[in-house]
Parts: sequence; C-alpha cells; structure tokens
Amino acid sequence: MVEEAIKVLERLKEEVPLVHAITNYVVINDNANALLSIGASPAMVMSPDEAYDFTAISNALYVNIGTINNETKETIINSVISAKDHKKPVVLDPVGCAAIKSRVDFVNMLLKIGDISIIKGNGGEIKALSGESANVRGVDSLDDSGNVDSCVKLAKLTNTVVVATGKEDYISDGKRVVKVKNGTYLFTKITGAGCTLGAIMAATSACSHDKVISSLAALLIMNIAGELAEKECNLPGTFRAKFIDNLYLINSDIIRKYADIEVLEA
Amino acid sequence: MVEEAIKVLERLKEEVPLVHAITNYVVINDNANALLSIGASPAMVMSPDEAYDFTAISNALYVNIGTINNETKETIINSVISAKDHKKPVVLDPVGCAAIKSRVDFVNMLLKIGDISIIKGNGGEIKALSGESANVRGVDSLDDSGNVDSCVKLAKLTNTVVVATGKEDYISDGKRVVKVKNGTYLFTKITGAGCTLGAIMAATSACSHDKVISSLAALLIMNIAGELAEKECNLPGTFRAKFIDNLYLINSDIIRKYADIEVLEA
Amino acid sequence: MVEEAIKVLERLKEEVPLVHAITNYVVINDNANALLSIGASPAMVMSPDEAYDFTAISNALYVNIGTINNETKETIINSVISAKDHKKPVVLDPVGCAAIKSRVDFVNMLLKIGDISIIKGNGGEIKALSGESANVRGVDSLDDSGNVDSCVKLAKLTNTVVVATGKEDYISDGKRVVKVKNGTYLFTKITGAGCTLGAIMAATSACSHDKVISSLAALLIMNIAGELAEKECNLPGTFRAKFIDNLYLINSDIIRKYADIEVLEA
Repeated sequence: MVEEAIKVLERLKEEVPLVHAITNYVVINDNANALLSIGASPAMVMSPDEAYDFTAISNALYVNIGTINNETKETIINSVISAKDHKKPVVLDPVGCAAIKSRVDFVNMLLKIGDISIIKGNGGEIKALSGESANVRGVDSLDDSGNVDSCVKLAKLTNTVVVATGKEDYISDGKRVVKVKNGTYLFTKITGAGCTLGAIMAATSACSHDKVISSLAALLIMNIAGELAEKECNLPGTFRAKFIDNLYLINSDIIRKYADIEVLEA
Repeated sequence: MVEEAIKVLERLKEEVPLVHAITNYVVINDNANALLSIGASPAMVMSPDEAYDFTAISNALYVNIGTINNETKETIINSVISAKDHKKPVVLDPVGCAAIKSRVDFVNMLLKIGDISIIKGNGGEIKALSGESANVRGVDSLDDSGNVDSCVKLAKLTNTVVVATGKEDYISDGKRVVKVKNGTYLFTKITGAGCTLGAIMAATSACSHDKVISSLAALLIMNIAGELAEKECNLPGTFRAKFIDNLYLINSDIIRKYADIEVLEA
Repeated sequence: MVEEAIKVLERLKEEVPLVHAITNYVVINDNANALLSIGASPAMVMSPDEAYDFTAISNALYVNIGTINNETKETIINSVISAKDHKKPVVLDPVGCAAIKSRVDFVNMLLKIGDISIIKGNGGEIKALSGESANVRGVDSLDDSGNVDSCVKLAKLTNTVVVATGKEDYISDGKRVVKVKNGTYLFTKITGAGCTLGAIMAATSACSHDKVISSLAALLIMNIAGELAEKECNLPGTFRAKFIDNLYLINSDIIRKYADIEVLEA
C-alpha cells in the first residue's frame, strides 16, 4: 500500500495538479506554501462569482470551513456544485464543527448537494459528524479514544473516504481501514497543521481514483516531513520553516524508508 | 508584582484558556501561532452568526480592528455583547484609530455597549482615544512622549485597564501605573507585534481577576521573548521564527531573571 | 540607470513612504513584512468606507486582485478614485486575470476610472490584458516567450509603465525597455513573490516621478535580495525568512555590486 501511495506522489510531481483551495484566513498562506512545496499549484479563489468557473478548470477542490462567513459559504456552495458537475474530487475539512453546532448542518448540506470525495477532521470533528459527543476545546480535539470507530462509522454513513487525525491517524472507506503512525507532536504546537494536511490531501486526490490511497499518500508526505523537521528543530517557530523545507525535499525513497502504517479490519 | 505576573503564566499553562480572537487578516496567522506557543488555545471565529455563541464558550475575547469591514464589525459587536452577558474578559486593540477617525467612534461605541477589560494600543492610538492629538504614520506612532499621561488619562476616562506601548510600555488602571522596560526595537521591523501582544494579553486576562497583573504578565512574556530572540538573530525574517521559539520556551525562571519593570505613581 | 534606481532606494529609506496595500489574503502578511523590511510603512485598510480617505493620506496605493470579493472590489474602486483625486501613484497587480476572464474586465474598468501608474503581472497576465492568448495554470504563467513584446504593447495600449515578470523581467513605458536578469527560481517555489514585488513597487513609486526607474529599483531590491537568500538556503521554508532578512539588509552598495540589467530598444 505504501508503494501505491508513492506512485501518487510521483504522479503529482509530474502532473502539477491545480488545487482550488477555499480555506480559512489563518492558514491560507501556509496552505499555499505547502502545496507549492510538494509540487502542486495552489489558487485561492474566494469570490462567489468566480468560484463555479474556477473549480471547473481546477484538478481538485479543497473546502475548509475554519473562518466561514456569509460570502465564503456562498463561494463554497458554488464550488461544491461545480466540482460535482465537472467530476472533480473534493476534500472537505469541517474545522470547528464539534464546537459550533451550526457547522454540522452546513457540512451535512454540502454532503447532500455535492459529491464529496473525502472528509478529513480531527477526532472531535469526525465524532461530531457521526452524531457522537466529542470532547473538544474550540477547534482542538482533547480525546483520541474511539477515533477509529467514528472514522469507519462516518465513512459508512456518508459513503465517502474519511480521515480522522489524532496521535495516530485513520483512513477508512467503510471497508478498508489504514492506521498511520508517522507524525510529530509539534503539529499541535503550530496553527493549521490539520488544514495543511487537508490541502495536500486535495492535491493527491487529483492523482488517484482510489481515495484511500491518495489520502495515505498525503498523510505520509505530511507526517514524515513533520518527523524530519522535528529532528532539525523542536521549537515551533523554526520547525514551521523546516517543515516546509522537508515537504519540498520529500520523495519516494524518503517515504519508503520512514512509512509506518498498519492495515486493519473495518 | 513580577511574582504575581509569573503566577498568571503558570495558571495559563495549566488552564489552556480558549481565546476567541477576532483579529486582522495581516496578523491572524501570527496571532494563532503566538497563542499556541505560550500554551493557550486560539480560535478565530469570524462569522457574525457564530460570534455570540462562540464567545460564550471561550475564556477570553480579543478584538482587533486592524482590517475591519462591515461584516467583521457585526461579528465584533455580537462578540462584545456576548462577553458582557457571559462575563468574559475583553481586550480591545484599536489599531489605526489615530489615522482613521471613524475608528474612534467605533471604539467608543464598543466601550458603551460592552464591558471592555483592557484597551491596548500604541501611544498614538491611546492619545487619539484620550481626545489628544497624535503624531502617527498610518498604523505607526511616531512620538512616545506623553504616553504615560495618556495611558492614565484613558484608564480614568473609560474605567478600564489601559496599556500604551512604545519604546517603553505603560499599564494603568487609573490608580496604579507600571512601566515595562523590556522589549526589542525589532518589534517595529516586523508586522503585527502589537497585535500579538494584544492576543497574548487576552490569554493572560483569562487567568487573573487583576487585569493590571495579567497585562504585566503578557508584556513580560512578549518583551522578554523578543529580547531573547534578538540575541539569536537581529534580522527580521529569522527573528520572527526565533521569537515564536522563545515564546514557546518562556517560563517562570526566565521571566524572573529578565523582568525590568518600575511601579510609578499615577 | 542603476545609479538612478539606487537613488530611489535612498529616498525611500529617508522618506518612509506610507503604502496603502489592498492585497490578497494569501500574501497580506508577507507583503507587510517585506514593506517594513525595506523601510516603508505598510497599512492594509480594507473597508470600502475607510478606503477613500486612507488612500488620500498615503504616499502610494497597491492594488492586488488575487482574492477579490464584492466588498474588496468596492474598496479597490474607492481607493483608485481617491488616488486619482489626490495624485497618488497606483500599482495594479492583475493576479489571475489570465485564468479568470471577468478579472480582465475589472482591470479594464479600473484603468478607465483611475489613473494607474504601473501594471505589474507575470507574462500570462500581461498577455491576457494585451488581448493575446496566454498559457497559464491557475495564477501561474507557463510560457515566458513573447513577454517583452506584450510588455511594450500593453504599455502603449494603456499609457502606463508595465512590468512583465518571468525568468527575466521587463519594464517598459512603451518607449524605453529594461530587462532585469537578477532573480532566483525559488520565487516560484514560495507563494506571493510576485505580490511582494508589487507591494515594493508601490513603495518605490512614491519616491520617483519616473516610474520606469522606480520599478527598476523595486525589481533590483526584490531580485537581488532573492539571489542572496538563495545563497544562504535553497529550501523554500528557510528561504522565505532569509529573503526578508536580505530585504532588510539591502543597500546601495549591494545593488551596485549585483545589478544585472540591459536597456533594450522598444
């Protein structure tokens, strides 16, 4: 499975997918730099009037609801419809939906009108969307227990691939489950690590029909780059720069050397 | 007084306050990373529809008017009312009010409808709110003379704690006055140092009923981290990363060792 | 011509021009830090209600349409009119206009109602505004051939100074043409290098009546700082910090030593 994920990275470097990222204001710069570093082409078109047409010429859509307002909600809706009309993969990042209940309704609406490929959230967000109670503080999840079950449950419920992040990350399409053990605690000390993962996941989703594999590729790229950056510096300010450096350096050999995953029963 | 400020930092590390930060687009990422580095939990909820309820579950509210528009003004109003209803501390950062007169009116309106705990601005902004003339260039203050007087004056006028930043920083509640001599000139060479201070001030305001002490804690955390970062690198690009590194490292012993303050007569 | 450009930098350091930058959300922080590093004073006022008056007290206006929405379009229009009324130089950055056709109309409208001093875009954007077809991927230009011709053509068509960036950069007012050979490929590996150039170009435009010379000054500052940063680190995360460090360090001697330009026939 790691070899299949490596092929996704190789295809990405060749194809340079254009990722239409509608993301939050906190991480918008980080997301763009991360996408450039791995070899994708980011574009953050945010106007409702431009969204439909721009998604149509993109290779994937990333939707992050971290700082939505009335205008960006409209932008998101237009893009999600366009992605469905033009058969573009969509990664949906339901930031904050465990703390802000109206966001669950917005996400459910998007699941209804669109054709979402992947939902990626932290454990708390995935639990909230599965209808379970979640222990969160603002946008952060405080309890990783049960993440794998909620991940599988939501995948079945929504018929999408679901990624639940935490100390360990899980990917499931309701049948297969993959556990990714790579990563670094420093991702919780900088803002927007989850969002950067989502943006990378959109880029890889354009490079494989199998969204479990494309999600695995994104998690390996992200988490291994984080591990290598941590080795260079474990202080968050310098770590952020080193993380981008390592995203830029990552390649097949590095992934092959460090990948630490487990395939589980659903 | 330094020992009391240190207790605020210790409480912050224990309690991990959730800070609802409605801040400007320039510094939103920096503010989030600074809050994470000191051990707080940031959330930048910006929709008018979500603001009231989110402030209610937060431990403190940070309001920065640097890039306000019609929608964020509404968000701010809803959050300021919620903070009053739910007795949450509010730090108000009147960015640019010395150059843009309509912002003085907006700030005065917030002071009327809300229960603002702390006003923090550079000398020019504090003078403008005190009804004095200020020598500024855009959002920057060009003259520090008289900062202490304006600080005390505005504190009495508004019945809040006021912090006036400059080469030296002043805190006053109209009775007590504290002068903080720590800091680095490099804060004027990077964008948003004042805004980052405001965000940190919101985090510490959740950890003490005495807002003079909580503000002092924030100034010591910020300014000493800046001094230590300057020692590592005095060029602004690298300094920014080192500053976040040092915010992450700061602790009671470091503050005790470097704090350089003076308690004055009001 | 390099000596004249150096004089612009010296004037900038003396005069500290206030740059009203209406820029996109991706690069807004980078733009502010770049402006501070070269010695200018940035202010990102984004409200339609505040725009007219703020441009009036600024020394130059930078307009970047990268993430426009309905509100920022209004802000831009108000500022462009104010710049005309108060005779302030305007740098217009038509980000994405080659991929999003409605942006060409918006730019043409601004050219009609305003008094634009400089249009700066990548080759694809300049071609799109010249009415030529352009090979682009999202906001990136994929083909530099013909950039010089489109640059001269658009300068004549619009009666402005035009800067077309690419592997080599061109400046033209329709009569003179200057080719700038400095630069680094790493500008294509980080987000917003073009936008940062535009912001710097606004700062220098406040320091010379000759906008070919002021644009040359900006390109030399930007590109030489990039070259020097590349020598320190060729990985994008660390490069970004080193680039800001080198913008801060740049001076007459450095520009004199490294400038690599060619004056061509129009």
